Amino acid sequence: MTQTRPTAAMLVIGDEILSGRTRDSNMNHLAKALTEHGLQLAEARVVADDRDAIITAVRHLSGAWDYLFTSGGIGPTHDDITAEAVAAAFDLPFGVREDARALLQAHYDRQGMELNEARLRMARIPEGACLIDNPISAAPGFSVCNVHVMAGVPAIFEAMVASVLPTITGGAPMLSQSLRVDKGEGDIADTLGRLAAAHPQVSIGSYPFYRNGAHGVNVVVRSQDAAAIDAVMAELHRHFAQGA
Amino acid sequence: MTQTRPTAAMLVIGDEILSGRTRDSNMNHLAKALTEHGLQLAEARVVADDRDAIITAVRHLSGAWDYLFTSGGIGPTHDDITAEAVAAAFDLPFGVREDARALLQAHYDRQGMELNEARLRMARIPEGACLIDNPISAAPGFSVCNVHVMAGVPAIFEAMVASVLPTITGGAPMLSQSLRVDKGEGDIADTLGRLAAAHPQVSIGSYPFYRNGAHGVNVVVRSQDAAAIDAVMAELHRHFAQGA
Repeated sequence: MTQTRPTAAMLVIGDEILSGRTRDSNMNHLAKALTEHGLQLAEARVVADDRDAIITAVRHLSGAWDYLFTSGGIGPTHDDITAEAVAAAFDLPFGVREDARALLQAHYDRQGMELNEARLRMARIPEGACLIDNPISAAPGFSVCNVHVMAGVPAIFEAMVASVLPTITGGAPMLSQSLRVDKGEGDIADTLGRLAAAHPQVSIGSYPFYRNGAHGVNVVVRSQDAAAIDAVMAELHRHFAQGA
Repeated sequence: MTQTRPTAAMLVIGDEILSGRTRDSNMNHLAKALTEHGLQLAEARVVADDRDAIITAVRHLSGAWDYLFTSGGIGPTHDDITAEAVAAAFDLPFGVREDARALLQAHYDRQGMELNEARLRMARIPEGACLIDNPISAAPGFSVCNVHVMAGVPAIFEAMVASVLPTITGGAPMLSQSLRVDKGEGDIADTLGRLAAAHPQVSIGSYPFYRNGAHGVNVVVRSQDAAAIDAVMAELHRHFAQGA
């Protein structure tokens, strides 16, 4: 049986992504992790380090989907404004939280570094939020309402995703099987369309490639229903696997 | 003098990006190309192969920014619905266009392949749109209103960007210089914040890294005003370059 999966959105925050200086890798990481956990990434957005843009996107995406995950903008510098924008999006009081300050103080004490004013910015957390552990550089993320606010540095983002996801109840995981077909996409499109219409509980994706002078297609069949996938794969093999 | 740059948005269309199966590379390519051409990528979104989601995003993004560039969903299969969704977004008549059909017919004739019904889907173009040349597999993109609709396959997307961008008047290109500082981001954040406040015509970005056991930061100064960048770089060198 097909079950509804909880839905999620991602908001990537950072001028450096939009200027092209940095290639985002967090979206692909989160997409895979959510799929494995039985959640559906329904939409993703990238906005600049701009307070109004962040507030607008957080309000919209957290209202439209079950969960919102953000990446970026929680460091110590002047352009790190995600935490205050998220607080503003939900009209929450915002300032240095003692639990977050204690985490940072312990971390910088261990490193023999100073918890200066810039670093203390990273202890500013909206009231009522739960902290998300940062095992790498201590500065926490946080969860408030249905929004999970995480760092942009990939290693930290990935660690935060690993600690947040177990707290969220996923649906049945999405399963998939694939078949490589050495034909042009236009040669198999008609068959794929008929199979998709006949099997509404599966999603059939077709991903063309061009390699060593020849066209081919990877056909990917996705569903929460393993038997439904098997049935479509059998049809695909019948149509395509023997040079039919 | 700082000039206003035209603004742009990108819409990436495809279930395979949101499931994590495929890692998008078109956004980073477009971001760099726009920056070089003097346009500002202001926002990017990823949506599923879903007609309503595409229509809503196309209407919003084409209204909010000067240009919209889309990627994906213009192939021959059942889930390639971008062209019809864009036509619907602007209430334009939509069907097989003879100029697009002629391009495809010539291409498949050369290849000794059949222009079948599935492939003919790729000749469906909104009325009034201009075709965008596809030097790789012939199926054209198109430009309508301020929206440029392009393929998702990276090599084709990149070729289409290269043919579209010269038709768009960019602003003065964004210039940048950078300095690597071997300190923690929290150690330099205060200085960066003061420089950013004193030089509003430049954008100062700070990108921490962790390499070989040591923290460091790449500081990137961006502006359309080369002299303003030089002034800030001189300050950065004075503060940081000599282990200050």
